[in-house]
Amino acid sequence: MSTAAEINEQIAGLQSRIKELKVAKQDASKEVDSMKSLKEQLKAVQKDQGPSTTQTLQLKTPKGTIDHKPEAALLRKKIFSTLEGIFLKHDASTIDTPVFELKEILAGKYGEDSKLIYDLADQGGELCSLRYDLTVPFARYVAMNGLSSIRRYHIGKVYRRDQPVMTKGRMREFYQCDFDIAGPCDPMVYDSEVLRVLCESLTSLDIGEYTVKINHRKILDGIFQLAGVPADKTRPISSAVDKLDKLPWADVKKEMTVEKGLDEKVADKIGEYVGLKGPGLEVLAKLQADTALTAIPLAKQGLDDMEILFRYLQVYKVLDKMSFDMSLARGLDYYTGIIYEAIHESSAPPSKAPVPSVPAPTSTSSATPASKPKRSKKDATVNEDGVDESTIGVGSIAAGGRYDNLVGMFASATGRKAEQVPCVGMSVGVERVYSIIEMRRKKAEEKVRGKETEVYVLGLGGVPIEKRMEFATLLWDAGIKTSFSPKVNPKPQPQWNQADDDLVPFIVILAPKELEAGTVRIKQQVGKDAAGDNKGEEVKVEDAVQYLKQKLAQI
Amino acid sequence: MSTAAEINEQIAGLQSRIKELKVAKQDASKEVDSMKSLKEQLKAVQKDQGPSTTQTLQLKTPKGTIDHKPEAALLRKKIFSTLEGIFLKHDASTIDTPVFELKEILAGKYGEDSKLIYDLADQGGELCSLRYDLTVPFARYVAMNGLSSIRRYHIGKVYRRDQPVMTKGRMREFYQCDFDIAGPCDPMVYDSEVLRVLCESLTSLDIGEYTVKINHRKILDGIFQLAGVPADKTRPISSAVDKLDKLPWADVKKEMTVEKGLDEKVADKIGEYVGLKGPGLEVLAKLQADTALTAIPLAKQGLDDMEILFRYLQVYKVLDKMSFDMSLARGLDYYTGIIYEAIHESSAPPSKAPVPSVPAPTSTSSATPASKPKRSKKDATVNEDGVDESTIGVGSIAAGGRYDNLVGMFASATGRKAEQVPCVGMSVGVERVYSIIEMRRKKAEEKVRGKETEVYVLGLGGVPIEKRMEFATLLWDAGIKTSFSPKVNPKPQPQWNQADDDLVPFIVILAPKELEAGTVRIKQQVGKDAAGDNKGEEVKVEDAVQYLKQKLAQI
Repeated sequence: MSTAAEINEQIAGLQSRIKELKVAKQDASKEVDSMKSLKEQLKAVQKDQGPSTTQTLQLKTPKGTIDHKPEAALLRKKIFSTLEGIFLKHDASTIDTPVFELKEILAGKYGEDSKLIYDLADQGGELCSLRYDLTVPFARYVAMNGLSSIRRYHIGKVYRRDQPVMTKGRMREFYQCDFDIAGPCDPMVYDSEVLRVLCESLTSLDIGEYTVKINHRKILDGIFQLAGVPADKTRPISSAVDKLDKLPWADVKKEMTVEKGLDEKVADKIGEYVGLKGPGLEVLAKLQADTALTAIPLAKQGLDDMEILFRYLQVYKVLDKMSFDMSLARGLDYYTGIIYEAIHESSAPPSKAPVPSVPAPTSTSSATPASKPKRSKKDATVNEDGVDESTIGVGSIAAGGRYDNLVGMFASATGRKAEQVPCVGMSVGVERVYSIIEMRRKKAEEKVRGKETEVYVLGLGGVPIEKRMEFATLLWDAGIKTSFSPKVNPKPQPQWNQADDDLVPFIVILAPKELEAGTVRIKQQVGKDAAGDNKGEEVKVEDAVQYLKQKLAQI
Repeated sequence: MSTAAEINEQIAGLQSRIKELKVAKQDASKEVDSMKSLKEQLKAVQKDQGPSTTQTLQLKTPKGTIDHKPEAALLRKKIFSTLEGIFLKHDASTIDTPVFELKEILAGKYGEDSKLIYDLADQGGELCSLRYDLTVPFARYVAMNGLSSIRRYHIGKVYRRDQPVMTKGRMREFYQCDFDIAGPCDPMVYDSEVLRVLCESLTSLDIGEYTVKINHRKILDGIFQLAGVPADKTRPISSAVDKLDKLPWADVKKEMTVEKGLDEKVADKIGEYVGLKGPGLEVLAKLQADTALTAIPLAKQGLDDMEILFRYLQVYKVLDKMSFDMSLARGLDYYTGIIYEAIHESSAPPSKAPVPSVPAPTSTSSATPASKPKRSKKDATVNEDGVDESTIGVGSIAAGGRYDNLVGMFASATGRKAEQVPCVGMSVGVERVYSIIEMRRKKAEEKVRGKETEVYVLGLGGVPIEKRMEFATLLWDAGIKTSFSPKVNPKPQPQWNQADDDLVPFIVILAPKELEAGTVRIKQQVGKDAAGDNKGEEVKVEDAVQYLKQKLAQI
């Protein structure tokens, strides 16, 4: 039996057929009969399916997804193109991987977040899942092609069956915008370039001030060793530390001791360090002077890395953007070296905290309302200062780190000679950047266009539509973005209104007398030379393209 | 119990931890023990899962999908940007809809092809499917937002669980590139502009000659009425006619009479018409002179449309691209007016068939190997001339038509006042365009780049890496795409090789003596001024940006 939707489709088809026949003054009685019978069928189907399905079709997008409307889509396109320009400047190429991967490729990569992975239905054949990020497909690509090095960017949508919070831009389908360098390098060479790319990106997007919180997994692990954290508790304790930007030290300590069974003295020792943050060289000097810490080889290694990194970042003119922050741990397990997270001014603490002379753990319980990229955790919607974070900030706007084992994990799982390909990369939080720009536009009451049309060809006094078409063709052939009314004999006012509604900067007026004299009137509607109520300039038809190109270049 | 993948992940993590501990000369015995136990576990898991799952992870993309590698991704990006430029020129905006829709939105839209729709697994909540095309989501968007008009383009991937034929570019995930105008217009105004956009697109892509086969559903239906096809057989018979570009008339007639129960005389009458094709105005004149046909009001209406259309297409300077072809019917049921399909020279018949003075049905059994957009049908891989179509052509490279009922179908299914929003649009077959360009590149042995890097900064004689970083920063700040070696002390040869491998057009050589004198050497590697074996030009550091910008503008 046909479904209600199919019957509806047939009815719609018949309706238009009947209309056509009537227009053509033909016999439509057979079609009318067919339609009656279809409508009976429809009722029967709907009755059969019971009350739950008699409800009509819901016209909506799936939960947690949205349509990007023209203005939003155009703005996103501009963000992408800005970022793309920077990635290309840094010797990157792009790859485009399928939106779904074999299920087993994603398995065991996201820890407890694996439950957020979208699976495709088993319709026979391979089991697949929608990609959860762009990093795992990248690592799969590198391993699968046996690459030893590649610099790649990838802009694409990823999918997470998370509880959506649309007002905070947390969606089930959203864009990621990644730049990664895979391959060996001398210490910190690629790491520093990725941070330069991150800063170039955020600066070029022109969204205001930002700070890059930075830390090193080896220093953190060194601190844990120094404090006496058992090896198997390193990652759980690290993940507790990572909550310090949202929870006060007391809560984090409780998680470490009560939930995760850490000795209280060990927790206190960690607490002495993780409050430390501030300008890179200052914090580095403090840590390098800490002989207990530098006696831990792992920590020493991390500190040596940071010394080189900061030297390179100085050359790259971005060192002043960094805040060396011992409380930054980042959720993902796969990071092995430096880690970083850029915080926008709209969600940063009121003032830059100076490096405390005595590490004070509670100093980290600042008002930073950053919502972490690790999205499965329940966000504290009200932080320790009683501020509802959903109303103030967008949290981290870019993040990343070094991950040296992910590619090797794929290589070894396939039974090949496990080849490690060290990687370092970053991801720009496009949705958050979008929210910031959107907010600023609203504040400035900026008019936003969803199209780029430059010229509206307006006909007066019964000028035939072919004349407008001919003129539009002239402009299209010259690369000028042009529109006109789809009416054969449009009235003047609707044409003016259309041009106004679309914020089209120039109107070309075709009128019989002028056309006879080989001229048109051109009126600027937008920009500093906008003509207001005057009648515009008379321009020869053969000079119109040249005239418009010059004018367009000026606005 | 953990899965093999999870255990593999833990092993990989431990391996790197042990390596770190060893580098740091620390005790790793606990970690080594843990790893041993994990490896035991892994064996147990693999044994438990039996022989079928002990096989290792397969590193591949899902069936019917591919990774677009850098060169391919860059070329696709260029195709998209060309098309986007044309769409924007024609007053279009873009929308970006989710990659999956509610299952019921897609239901009843694709006829028997519905079986090719990918469903998402039922993980609780709504049932969703991956989009099958961009047209249905567009119609859903228009209906959902109650729009009365919009001109939109959309470039995105769509999904079909079809039997993939990778050599023919038939994939399960592939790009569509659509331009549609929704909203009322005077007859043929939007129709003609869409055809102008189609021709502008194909011409701009610079892929060689093409022909646009064009027909009108009302004329076809008029012919069916004239021949005496019963109303309920119109669409099945239409779909039989649509096969005339691949099957001889005898086979199509057999389908009509034997399979679909049409009277033989009726089929013969159809056969008198469907062989007619040729330049628009010629075919139109022939049909207009056919008083039996023009007596059918539906046909008359279609012919009047075509007369207006061809007048507008003449103004738009694309009439000569059209071939009015009575055998074109197009698979999709939802078309209600003009329909068209662009055929590339690589798959067109050897010569343009003149309009036959007596309609000869068999004249359509030409060598046209066009594989139809309606992909579910089994393609004839060997056509009537014994030519394997997979080896010669890519078939239709763009197609579309007018569909006036699709939006109204959504509106009425929701129980709203059914509002019809007439639409006309077209889709460029990006994968086919890509194949054509790719083929031409291979023929021309053109070197293809996957990145756009313009300058390689090369260090000689122990110049510190910071100098190369500093110079790269200078170029990046000036917007110049720049790379350099990630080694602190790279040897000269690997640097030259890297620049050569990447086809980087300029090399800036930093050497101690020159740097002391405030100069660098700049050598052009690619383009007409390529320096060959000479040493390049000596340029002052402060003039380098200016010098490079000028040179780059010339290549």
